[in-house]
Amino acid sequence: MSMPWVAAFEEGSANDRARLGGKGAGLAEMSRIGLPVPPGFTITTEACLAFQDQKRLPDGLMDAVWAHLAQLEQKAGRRLGDPEAPLLVSVRSGAPISMPGMMDTVLNLGLNAETAEGLGREAESQRFALDSYRRFIQMFGNVVMHMDHARFEEELAAVKEAAGVTEDPQLSPEALQQVIQRYLRLVEERTGHPFPTDPRQQLQMAIEAVFDSWNNPRAQVYRRLNKISDQLGTAVNVQAMAFGNLGDTSGTGVLFTRNPNTGEPGMYGEFLTNAQGEDVVAGIRTPRPIGELAEVLPAAHRQLEEVCALLERHYRDMQDIEFTIERERLYLLQTRTGKRTARAAVKIAVDLAQEGVVSKEDAIARQDPAQVAQLLYRQIDPHANLHELAKGLPASPGAAAGEVVFDADEAERRGSRGDAVILVRPETTPDDIHGMVAAQGVLTSRGGMTSHAAIVARGMGKPAVTGCEALRINLADQSFTVGEVRVAAGDVITIDGATGRVILGPVDTVAPTLFAEFETLLGWADAMRRLGVEANADTPEDAQRARDFGAEGIGLCRTEHMFMGQNRLPVVQEMILAESERERAQALERLLPMQEEDFYGILQAMDGHPVTIRLLDPPLHEFLPDEAEVAAALEQSRAAGDDAAAERLARVLSRARQLFEFNPMLGFRGVRLGIVYPEIYAMQVRAIFRAEARLLAAGLHPHVEIMIPLVGVAPELERMAELVADVHTEEERRHGGALPYQVGTMIEVPRAALTAGEIAKTAQFFSFGTNDLTQTTFGYSRDDAESKFLPAYLADKILPENPFVVLDQEGVGQLVRIGVEAGKAARPDLRVGICGEHGGDASSIRFCHQVGLDYVSCSPYRVPIARLAAAQAALGR
Amino acid sequence: MSMPWVAAFEEGSANDRARLGGKGAGLAEMSRIGLPVPPGFTITTEACLAFQDQKRLPDGLMDAVWAHLAQLEQKAGRRLGDPEAPLLVSVRSGAPISMPGMMDTVLNLGLNAETAEGLGREAESQRFALDSYRRFIQMFGNVVMHMDHARFEEELAAVKEAAGVTEDPQLSPEALQQVIQRYLRLVEERTGHPFPTDPRQQLQMAIEAVFDSWNNPRAQVYRRLNKISDQLGTAVNVQAMAFGNLGDTSGTGVLFTRNPNTGEPGMYGEFLTNAQGEDVVAGIRTPRPIGELAEVLPAAHRQLEEVCALLERHYRDMQDIEFTIERERLYLLQTRTGKRTARAAVKIAVDLAQEGVVSKEDAIARQDPAQVAQLLYRQIDPHANLHELAKGLPASPGAAAGEVVFDADEAERRGSRGDAVILVRPETTPDDIHGMVAAQGVLTSRGGMTSHAAIVARGMGKPAVTGCEALRINLADQSFTVGEVRVAAGDVITIDGATGRVILGPVDTVAPTLFAEFETLLGWADAMRRLGVEANADTPEDAQRARDFGAEGIGLCRTEHMFMGQNRLPVVQEMILAESERERAQALERLLPMQEEDFYGILQAMDGHPVTIRLLDPPLHEFLPDEAEVAAALEQSRAAGDDAAAERLARVLSRARQLFEFNPMLGFRGVRLGIVYPEIYAMQVRAIFRAEARLLAAGLHPHVEIMIPLVGVAPELERMAELVADVHTEEERRHGGALPYQVGTMIEVPRAALTAGEIAKTAQFFSFGTNDLTQTTFGYSRDDAESKFLPAYLADKILPENPFVVLDQEGVGQLVRIGVEAGKAARPDLRVGICGEHGGDASSIRFCHQVGLDYVSCSPYRVPIARLAAAQAALGR
Repeated sequence: MSMPWVAAFEEGSANDRARLGGKGAGLAEMSRIGLPVPPGFTITTEACLAFQDQKRLPDGLMDAVWAHLAQLEQKAGRRLGDPEAPLLVSVRSGAPISMPGMMDTVLNLGLNAETAEGLGREAESQRFALDSYRRFIQMFGNVVMHMDHARFEEELAAVKEAAGVTEDPQLSPEALQQVIQRYLRLVEERTGHPFPTDPRQQLQMAIEAVFDSWNNPRAQVYRRLNKISDQLGTAVNVQAMAFGNLGDTSGTGVLFTRNPNTGEPGMYGEFLTNAQGEDVVAGIRTPRPIGELAEVLPAAHRQLEEVCALLERHYRDMQDIEFTIERERLYLLQTRTGKRTARAAVKIAVDLAQEGVVSKEDAIARQDPAQVAQLLYRQIDPHANLHELAKGLPASPGAAAGEVVFDADEAERRGSRGDAVILVRPETTPDDIHGMVAAQGVLTSRGGMTSHAAIVARGMGKPAVTGCEALRINLADQSFTVGEVRVAAGDVITIDGATGRVILGPVDTVAPTLFAEFETLLGWADAMRRLGVEANADTPEDAQRARDFGAEGIGLCRTEHMFMGQNRLPVVQEMILAESERERAQALERLLPMQEEDFYGILQAMDGHPVTIRLLDPPLHEFLPDEAEVAAALEQSRAAGDDAAAERLARVLSRARQLFEFNPMLGFRGVRLGIVYPEIYAMQVRAIFRAEARLLAAGLHPHVEIMIPLVGVAPELERMAELVADVHTEEERRHGGALPYQVGTMIEVPRAALTAGEIAKTAQFFSFGTNDLTQTTFGYSRDDAESKFLPAYLADKILPENPFVVLDQEGVGQLVRIGVEAGKAARPDLRVGICGEHGGDASSIRFCHQVGLDYVSCSPYRVPIARLAAAQAALGR
Repeated sequence: MSMPWVAAFEEGSANDRARLGGKGAGLAEMSRIGLPVPPGFTITTEACLAFQDQKRLPDGLMDAVWAHLAQLEQKAGRRLGDPEAPLLVSVRSGAPISMPGMMDTVLNLGLNAETAEGLGREAESQRFALDSYRRFIQMFGNVVMHMDHARFEEELAAVKEAAGVTEDPQLSPEALQQVIQRYLRLVEERTGHPFPTDPRQQLQMAIEAVFDSWNNPRAQVYRRLNKISDQLGTAVNVQAMAFGNLGDTSGTGVLFTRNPNTGEPGMYGEFLTNAQGEDVVAGIRTPRPIGELAEVLPAAHRQLEEVCALLERHYRDMQDIEFTIERERLYLLQTRTGKRTARAAVKIAVDLAQEGVVSKEDAIARQDPAQVAQLLYRQIDPHANLHELAKGLPASPGAAAGEVVFDADEAERRGSRGDAVILVRPETTPDDIHGMVAAQGVLTSRGGMTSHAAIVARGMGKPAVTGCEALRINLADQSFTVGEVRVAAGDVITIDGATGRVILGPVDTVAPTLFAEFETLLGWADAMRRLGVEANADTPEDAQRARDFGAEGIGLCRTEHMFMGQNRLPVVQEMILAESERERAQALERLLPMQEEDFYGILQAMDGHPVTIRLLDPPLHEFLPDEAEVAAALEQSRAAGDDAAAERLARVLSRARQLFEFNPMLGFRGVRLGIVYPEIYAMQVRAIFRAEARLLAAGLHPHVEIMIPLVGVAPELERMAELVADVHTEEERRHGGALPYQVGTMIEVPRAALTAGEIAKTAQFFSFGTNDLTQTTFGYSRDDAESKFLPAYLADKILPENPFVVLDQEGVGQLVRIGVEAGKAARPDLRVGICGEHGGDASSIRFCHQVGLDYVSCSPYRVPIARLAAAQAALGR
């Protein structure tokens, strides 16, 4: 407790945020650098904590306040309670972290009957003084004495009605006197105490009220939700009033130093003349754009522009400023870093860097990857002609269109048929999760950004709009109305989870593209990062998109999607149903040229960059039709006497039953297929080498990496590497030249990570498949967990995050660390990457950087995020 | 190559096994300690390896042989090839590890026309000499010159027929001369070379043949299968002949120093008078029990008894001895540690320890837990009246009865209906595995101990008899015959995989019991081991059996089996179908007293010992009927217009569909149930405490440990520990006294092991659930893996063992090690055990000892094995 409990503005600086709060530090800093700030002082957060501790103002605190007040009186040339030259002050809370729920501002503190009269004399406006007094009683009564705001409004309305006027400014001084008397009576009636007329008592009460508000329920909940420590406390700022309501050469306003939506340079904000702070936000008078100030008060406008430039350079970021002009004289009441959209955040950072205000490193470091990600979701086509029905909360970004369904079971039924549906519910519960899984998006009429629907949808990466209160949902007749419009089950709507918009009918969505500043920023990021960034892509189109977003290769090319093509599937099924090796060989022979084309296209699109091709991974039964459907078809064809069809279907059914698995995730898949049916992998490897040979012959530069999935014991990889080498020898002979390649494995079961040293004796690269590794490390089946218990785990904070979205560093990450260390110890030039969904998550990328991975691979749309996050990781901030 | 290549018997000892082979070391040791061994020498394994290397006898080897031969001649007072006093020798192979496939013995080497005549003169029996010569040509021709044994027999038969006799001894010397001439002609015709008459040439050829046989295909395969190094080589023993065929005061025999079947003390073996070694095993004359030697040659019998006692004390184990008596003079030709049954192994070790021949530690250390395990399988009731049909190979121990099926699909169909079936096949292939899984046991007519059926059945722990060649299987008419008996599909048979017996009809099987020496041995083991041994038991009956076998507590009491009881299941289903918390609470209220009785019974049976009760683990859908069956029943009741039934069934169906999981192994089970439905766990915990309270009131000493399954993140356990504590507080109040308990968790997903330090902050004990931990660490679903790819992995040696049977120390074991270390670091008095199947496997138990576990828990029948293996682990040998 060596620091004093009270500090004049000029005694502090921007560095004293913890002690003075954000607002106090801003006022101190502006005072320190000579900007026009009305004098004042800050009662520190330490005093607040002592107050919390002792349940009363600590000894000596008020003495210090009075001492600082005396200094303030001296600076202002006025005294608190002095009827001749009364000092009025504002009292505002200001915590180190901006948070709602804290006590609002009290303006004009220091007024009573006497000082009001003196103020009127001085300002040559009795009306101004009485109106200020009236406002003060109302604000103090509400904020400090916890009286209902509406009760004051009723009194005011009664006087206006009696006076026959509709607007406040129309009230005569006499009428205002009436209002004041009614207010004072009201306070005494309600609280049992007269309204305090002693300005010093007013000040002490206001300070206590701010400290009290630190622990009000709303503030407590906010802190818990946002993980803000209860041990920060709030400061109290006491500041001489500047009056924006002293006529037309006075005014007040708020502004951003740049456009917070687009990032465009230039002041962006609004002002009102002859008004006090609360008028700008109250909505009674319409504020004017800040540009118009140049016409009204050109000198003040010019001065504001200079102040903005100075503050930006000083704070090295775009600022959000409050100001008051008292009789043409500008006063700054607040400055803080301004909130901005994702797009603006990028543009402002790049502009500031190019203006030399910040370094490129700063421009990178200050981006929030989660915010930048919003630039990369599919968006409503900005040129679309659309019918916006309503607006809710932007709970989970992305745009989705589909038919309205009102029931989770129905959503699941329709969704599993492949229909696009939007699940619309008053709110969702854990019982709705299977429907949310099956829907394209979720819309609720109740619940906020942290409601069940919002949390679950964000966890699933699914668009959601919540708390859209304009919706009147009628479950009984399966419809909702918005005003006059009725939307029934089956009608199509579109939701935009990034903006909260609900739109009637289907709307085109557009793929995101990079804009100039974003490209510039990512270029800087590329120069700073150590981690490579590759993409997961299965088609030439995906590969091209990945290149466009800056991917440096394909870290995961899944080949099973190629097996699912319409012209492929029948041949694949033949291969699976084969009753002899010869039959299977014939089917594989037919698949060979098709696969060769697949690989040709992808290697061509990624020419000159590595393409990691994973051999067949899923269990074979995934390629067979559903057992129940086959059984039904078999019944039918038997009834119809179609013996040939029946025989084939019986074979399919028998094979499907044979291949049935209790836990396919842990079953006969990955390298296990390669060991039991080496001819399948041999065909794929042959197709890869043939594609490579053709590309080399055409003068291109394919980089082939063959990845064996699901290896758990080293001999699996050894056998498969031998198989690859055998086919390679044949194909090099056929090609008549070298066909360079590497062979490696996914690390996606714990045992592979634990025995990485053995596996690296054969593997030339590792790719951590953290999706499956998370499943096996936790023992979670993602399909089941996300629809059964994970939502409850996240809601109850048993898990801090969905481990399928954010890499679990403590558990899964420990295996990654073990695997990297053992792998690189066994083979120092082992290339190690990650290809799970985590490859596109910023905090996971930071971890990948720290544990020494060589690259991350993610979905093409996450590539820009990965480039940015990799650079931030390299910067170590 | 500093050691000489040839060593006289008296130059070596029992320690030279690697160099002299097992047989050579035995002869050397017996010579060294003064037992009557015909003189001889051993050509070392090093010479064999040099031979393999150079593809010929190494330089100098034969010189050394001739030098040793000269010494041998001197000792014997006879010379090789000397017609007056011919030395005859035997030549035998002898590798360091006994193995079939190596060259057989050649006796009487050194004979030709001249020496045979001299031998006849000397022995005063021309017949004896000619018969010896005849035998020598036949043996040498077969073994050294690779001629077909049958061709010699044909010649012999022809002479016998011409002479009008049926038995060999009836042949006159003249007839024997004819046989010899025919044999010599046969050799020359077949090989193109005359039969070698030079004894030195004979000896060199025999030595080369032994060395050659090291690499014959049969020996190579045997070594590969049994993991014997190719770098051992074999030695050759050359030894002066002793003749057991010199009339009625001569003889030969084999014996065990104790009964190898029962372990009873006293010589056990057989002999023949006037015979050479091969006659005892050839089966032409019936050997006589060794006891009768006391009447025939009492002095030799007495001497043999002395030798047996001496050898047992010397070798400190039961010996398997070959001897020859030449005119009342005893010679020992071989001694080695005798093979014995599991029962005999135990009894002999205990008897030897009690006789002071070995220490108790030795008695423990020399037990093979895999062999001892045979004492603990269910066995055919020895008093059962049974019809033994045939005998095959004892491929996988245990007895099983069931209806015969000839097709794997049929076995699966019937087996999944709950029928007991025995799968009978000519041999099995990977396509049959699903049938093997579903069958009680497997019987094949072809294939040995390492056939597919044998390997897979042992892997599954399922009884199997293979290679039962007496079976004539007729798949077309679905039957097999054994001689006159025809067994059709659907008939019941019983197989005994421990003995290879196939029995017609069902036979009672009996649970194993401990016999006196086994009890004694286990008592010694208990005093030596550090590891505790507990049992997995779910019922009071199991608990009692576990106590009988020496379990010191219950390491895993599964509560789900209690939910499956006939009177429970409907209530459990009601609980699952409950549509409100109130409904669920009502169902749980009804389950409470039932569970209380369950726990009362088990805690009572284990009074004074810890009982670790695992709360509900399986996914709830396991308690609901099969979805397809419900759907069919629903259809039916709808058709029948039974609305009430239809409504209930529709609810069941809807709930079953809601609970459906893609990978139930990784799904909504274990602690995840406890988190989402805490009322279920609360009911179980309440039942436990109420049972404990009643037992305490009755003066008993229950030790309650509550185990939370499937914990993966510490907060799961924290919440559940709070829940347990809350119920505990209520129940202590109700009881009016202390209810001691501990709470802990299963470690069965990798993440739990990786974060064991965090979890141990709450857990008072860990139990490694290595079944599930193996599943998640490997990413194997046991149900799927064992029927799909594991057999191929074992056959191809991709895995050395089935990791569900033998703990994978490299992967899963690493997690166990990490978990133990982190857990004990966080809580030094943490009690750590294992309750997977591995808790009953000897090599896994050794690992558990090494990593510092406190106890193992296994099935009651494995408890004796665990006690033994734990002692062996503590002995470090």
